[in-house]
Amino acid sequence: MAGNTFGKKFRLTTFGESHGVAIGGVVDGCPSGVSLNFEAIQYELDRRRPGQSAIVTQRKEADKVEFLSGVFEGKTTGTPIGFVVQNTNQKSGDYEHLKDVYRPSHADYTYDKKYGFRDYRGGGRSSARETISRVVGGAIAKQLMPEVKINAFVSSVGEIFIDKPYQALDFSLTETNDVRCPDLVTAQKMEEYIRQIRKEGDTIGGTITCVIQNLPSGLGDPVFDKLHAELGKAMLSINAVKGFEYGSGFCGAKMRGSEHNDLFNPDGSTKSNLSGGIQGGISNGMDIYFRVAFKPVATIMQTQQTIDKDGNLLEMQGKGRHDPCVVPRAVPIVEAMAALVLADFIV
Amino acid sequence: MAGNTFGKKFRLTTFGESHGVAIGGVVDGCPSGVSLNFEAIQYELDRRRPGQSAIVTQRKEADKVEFLSGVFEGKTTGTPIGFVVQNTNQKSGDYEHLKDVYRPSHADYTYDKKYGFRDYRGGGRSSARETISRVVGGAIAKQLMPEVKINAFVSSVGEIFIDKPYQALDFSLTETNDVRCPDLVTAQKMEEYIRQIRKEGDTIGGTITCVIQNLPSGLGDPVFDKLHAELGKAMLSINAVKGFEYGSGFCGAKMRGSEHNDLFNPDGSTKSNLSGGIQGGISNGMDIYFRVAFKPVATIMQTQQTIDKDGNLLEMQGKGRHDPCVVPRAVPIVEAMAALVLADFIV
Amino acid sequence: MAGNTFGKKFRLTTFGESHGVAIGGVVDGCPSGVSLNFEAIQYELDRRRPGQSAIVTQRKEADKVEFLSGVFEGKTTGTPIGFVVQNTNQKSGDYEHLKDVYRPSHADYTYDKKYGFRDYRGGGRSSARETISRVVGGAIAKQLMPEVKINAFVSSVGEIFIDKPYQALDFSLTETNDVRCPDLVTAQKMEEYIRQIRKEGDTIGGTITCVIQNLPSGLGDPVFDKLHAELGKAMLSINAVKGFEYGSGFCGAKMRGSEHNDLFNPDGSTKSNLSGGIQGGISNGMDIYFRVAFKPVATIMQTQQTIDKDGNLLEMQGKGRHDPCVVPRAVPIVEAMAALVLADFIV
Amino acid sequence: MAGNTFGKKFRLTTFGESHGVAIGGVVDGCPSGVSLNFEAIQYELDRRRPGQSAIVTQRKEADKVEFLSGVFEGKTTGTPIGFVVQNTNQKSGDYEHLKDVYRPSHADYTYDKKYGFRDYRGGGRSSARETISRVVGGAIAKQLMPEVKINAFVSSVGEIFIDKPYQALDFSLTETNDVRCPDLVTAQKMEEYIRQIRKEGDTIGGTITCVIQNLPSGLGDPVFDKLHAELGKAMLSINAVKGFEYGSGFCGAKMRGSEHNDLFNPDGSTKSNLSGGIQGGISNGMDIYFRVAFKPVATIMQTQQTIDKDGNLLEMQGKGRHDPCVVPRAVPIVEAMAALVLADFIV
Repeated sequence: MAGNTFGKKFRLTTFGESHGVAIGGVVDGCPSGVSLNFEAIQYELDRRRPGQSAIVTQRKEADKVEFLSGVFEGKTTGTPIGFVVQNTNQKSGDYEHLKDVYRPSHADYTYDKKYGFRDYRGGGRSSARETISRVVGGAIAKQLMPEVKINAFVSSVGEIFIDKPYQALDFSLTETNDVRCPDLVTAQKMEEYIRQIRKEGDTIGGTITCVIQNLPSGLGDPVFDKLHAELGKAMLSINAVKGFEYGSGFCGAKMRGSEHNDLFNPDGSTKSNLSGGIQGGISNGMDIYFRVAFKPVATIMQTQQTIDKDGNLLEMQGKGRHDPCVVPRAVPIVEAMAALVLADFIV
Repeated sequence: MAGNTFGKKFRLTTFGESHGVAIGGVVDGCPSGVSLNFEAIQYELDRRRPGQSAIVTQRKEADKVEFLSGVFEGKTTGTPIGFVVQNTNQKSGDYEHLKDVYRPSHADYTYDKKYGFRDYRGGGRSSARETISRVVGGAIAKQLMPEVKINAFVSSVGEIFIDKPYQALDFSLTETNDVRCPDLVTAQKMEEYIRQIRKEGDTIGGTITCVIQNLPSGLGDPVFDKLHAELGKAMLSINAVKGFEYGSGFCGAKMRGSEHNDLFNPDGSTKSNLSGGIQGGISNGMDIYFRVAFKPVATIMQTQQTIDKDGNLLEMQGKGRHDPCVVPRAVPIVEAMAALVLADFIV
Repeated sequence: MAGNTFGKKFRLTTFGESHGVAIGGVVDGCPSGVSLNFEAIQYELDRRRPGQSAIVTQRKEADKVEFLSGVFEGKTTGTPIGFVVQNTNQKSGDYEHLKDVYRPSHADYTYDKKYGFRDYRGGGRSSARETISRVVGGAIAKQLMPEVKINAFVSSVGEIFIDKPYQALDFSLTETNDVRCPDLVTAQKMEEYIRQIRKEGDTIGGTITCVIQNLPSGLGDPVFDKLHAELGKAMLSINAVKGFEYGSGFCGAKMRGSEHNDLFNPDGSTKSNLSGGIQGGISNGMDIYFRVAFKPVATIMQTQQTIDKDGNLLEMQGKGRHDPCVVPRAVPIVEAMAALVLADFIV
Repeated sequence: MAGNTFGKKFRLTTFGESHGVAIGGVVDGCPSGVSLNFEAIQYELDRRRPGQSAIVTQRKEADKVEFLSGVFEGKTTGTPIGFVVQNTNQKSGDYEHLKDVYRPSHADYTYDKKYGFRDYRGGGRSSARETISRVVGGAIAKQLMPEVKINAFVSSVGEIFIDKPYQALDFSLTETNDVRCPDLVTAQKMEEYIRQIRKEGDTIGGTITCVIQNLPSGLGDPVFDKLHAELGKAMLSINAVKGFEYGSGFCGAKMRGSEHNDLFNPDGSTKSNLSGGIQGGISNGMDIYFRVAFKPVATIMQTQQTIDKDGNLLEMQGKGRHDPCVVPRAVPIVEAMAALVLADFIV
């Protein structure tokens, strides 16, 4: 079944493999008359780009987006917005040794089981390079709702985490450090830890927290398409994500109703917000916040045992230029997916 | 936007409010020629039914399902299966006092914001009674894949949790106790705790773990419709759910790649299974397991301050017959939603 | 693939076989706060009902619709509207002789090829009785746009046709005769012809014209989901329909651009309207009009040769109570489907 | 509502304006392992290309398709196939005079009503240049079912038509003449007529007939997504189409059941085929045939009165290089859309 479209009304359809000609997509359902800020779109891509800092993969990909349609004289026309990002720095030779090998905890084995065949170069379609299209789509979506603030940030790396509620953070600090953690003391610990992990040829997991502010109440559909169910699906669709929780999340499962209930103020706002801004699947005007868990990157620079297509055991070692920790570069992806979910309810 | 249909190929569309005439639905896309076991469907409804034990709501609803179409001489015809469950025990009078009041952490406020108007009797469409249709749909879905085993169970209530991996559990014990916890010592502690919580007029959250076994590899779509993204959306769409994790989940975010990677055996199975049976969004043939967090039920038998439609503060106390803890009755719902997700990939 | 849902935003999902328990459906996406006129809905069903006049089938089915959800205190709540119509007058015995026989130009053979199995009683799901759900859904859709006028009428029966443009007709006369033809002289000829056809044990085809007035401009999507493409699909999905044309239709294929172009008036209206109210797939505010061709009913009261499942030739004769001409009863169905298409663009 | 995707399982999403950077699309849901014949795809584009003969528009566009993803070592990978066709010969200056003018029977007025704004160059998104993406998508679809034969041809131009049943035609002659009419005597008359029409600065309508052979029985869904309903929508979505009929079509509306019914042969085939290969919305294994009506091209080389955005009357004359008759170039488009419909039922 075709699974490369996200959204019902504001729809992003994507294509592209990591080592093919280009990554790209189509945004369908964008309202007409929106003056697109193309620099803001490229800025989001630059936040996702490899090689942007010392703690991410050192691949040097320009990742410049080109728009092919749907925009006339700087404004959206209401017709589909096609875009492409050329793949310019593929070193396919880096991957020739993977042709018949299944890398542990990658998608090599399952793609072969599903499709009987795969583009083995750098993960092909399963590469996180696919998220380029999400970032472009999300950056367009963001521009449909300038009043809504979507701020994601790294809230933990391994065992290191921000020990403060998000309300105590200054989101303007997120982009001031390579980890994208707005708590600068924690950010520095995380950065040092990531450097250490990389030296050891290893990788490390982490979490991203995202806060959505100024969203009006009444968004979301009851029953199957609850706002948080759509956010959850969106986040879980990002490579390497293992979990999603919003509001009180898994902690809420340990609480009593008498402590968990959010009591109302006369204006309809609530004194506490363990609901996470969503009740019955519909936004209530309070902050929406959620947390996303990312596993450690599967490609490590250590020798691992694995198998080839014929079931022969062999030893392999990671090659190429990979991230020791995925969360710094995943921050704009989380924001993009959140924006896509919201746009689908807003348009 | 219409949000009452789940699935693309095996589609469940539902309708019904808690105090309307009936709850029901339509299953479209069911293959023809399946000999439906109607008792097995009713059995799942009975597992969800109020009044089934001392630790759940004492409302006495029969919840008998009637099939209206799509079945001929005991077998599915390939045409849509319509079904209804009459609402027989509604005491609407119980809810008259809620007409103009917003209950804390319920969907009253957000429904009014979205629709400008709501059926205030017992939650209306936001009532968990809506899940009846999911259980029927899921019970049909289960019968399409008799070889696949879907076992959900209560893994924690409040701070009490099963301190064993699921592999050490005997799922046949789940139905032997009112909590639906297959670890009997823990089950007893949970049951006592829930009784205590109810005596205090309070409620408590919990988690459900679900294990899917014997699923073939190759199921799931890459990119947006990853198998775990669909499972996550399905679970997050259930009332009161605050979080979802699969495989290593949030723990995986603290791990290193060298410890998280699942190394292959020559036959393609993996020595460990932190991936949770899914890689790149596609099943790999190993067990799929995930955990779902439920918040405490919002209706408590204690006095709470709240507001009415006009923003007047007032005191209210829960009336009616409610669950002190939702997870025992949510077990069949989790299984049903898992079955619906799988059926959509299988048909 | 599940094919029993119509619409994207205003969605009708239907179920039911002619000789099952009930016919029904779910309308999802209906806005909240609409005061539903239930008599108007039943009125449309009565227009479709068998036994309503001497020239239609004499089956006596009450076809009373019961609403199960989505309406509270007379107004829609925004949640799905479930409804059922009990099947009360099935004489299944009438159809026992058809169990293993394929009736010519019916769906018996193709259903068996697709599903390997079928409910053979009265056509099962392929029966025109399925259109009951369409009429209910369409009658709800109509009430979302009271200013829009949708008038369908019988424009031909066999070789007898209305020899006037629709602008010369008084639509209030449509319901004054059994054929539903607003040109009374022609209506009488049609009626006599249908009586004659029935006497001969035969059936006859016909066409229905539909005119949509007061529709605002700007409705419809370009490219694949053009307004007339959706109307065409809707009409072609009705049992027995063989063709659809709008505006100049097939006649337009014989014309020159210089005679076909609709020149503008200064107010944006057009002097002629060969476009049929739609340009580039989008309504332009002029009348939309289209014509739908229905084949003769396949069940005739004459002896025909046919085959059984095993390919044995045999003779059969139509039994039961069937329409000699389908178009009088199809008028409300055409209107209903038109209303469903419009509602999907309007909500 | 986003309307630029066709199909549910085999999905084509398109983008591009006539005078933007490129036309393109994404095919999602294509099975893996298909060895794509790229020359066959380009061949279909060449059949659609302007400037291919003396009786079509003399714009010289190369229309070379470039594939960006979804194909590895010549075979489809199961991942989305992105493609682009650069716009190389746009003379935007030709259209500057149209900036504020509404051309009669074009989509200028309705696009402005819907979007408040439009790319006025050459029709923008409403240009038939959009069908390039359909032809590419359809050419891929064709390759999924090599045994199925889809043959479209021009069956009438103005009042000139082929006076033979399709069974008497040799489809291999269709491509031997510029009109794409397999009856060579009629083809010559058509060609002369089109030349004459062009000399007069006028345009002319026509019809295309399409025959699908070797399609297995059992394809199509009952109720809303009948095979012929999907074919009808597909055809009506092509620019300039005003009508669709299949099998007996509008003639069937004049016939009696006793002459219209297709009697069975013992092997399940039918003696006649007025059903057009589809019964109850499902293919029966006989030939499917249908006819599509195209209106005359709206741009004529004669002076016409029209209005500008402010409602001022003015005179305009067609400029640029336009087709005097659209049907010769529409033949591959009809085939492409038919292939897309079939692929969606087959994959």
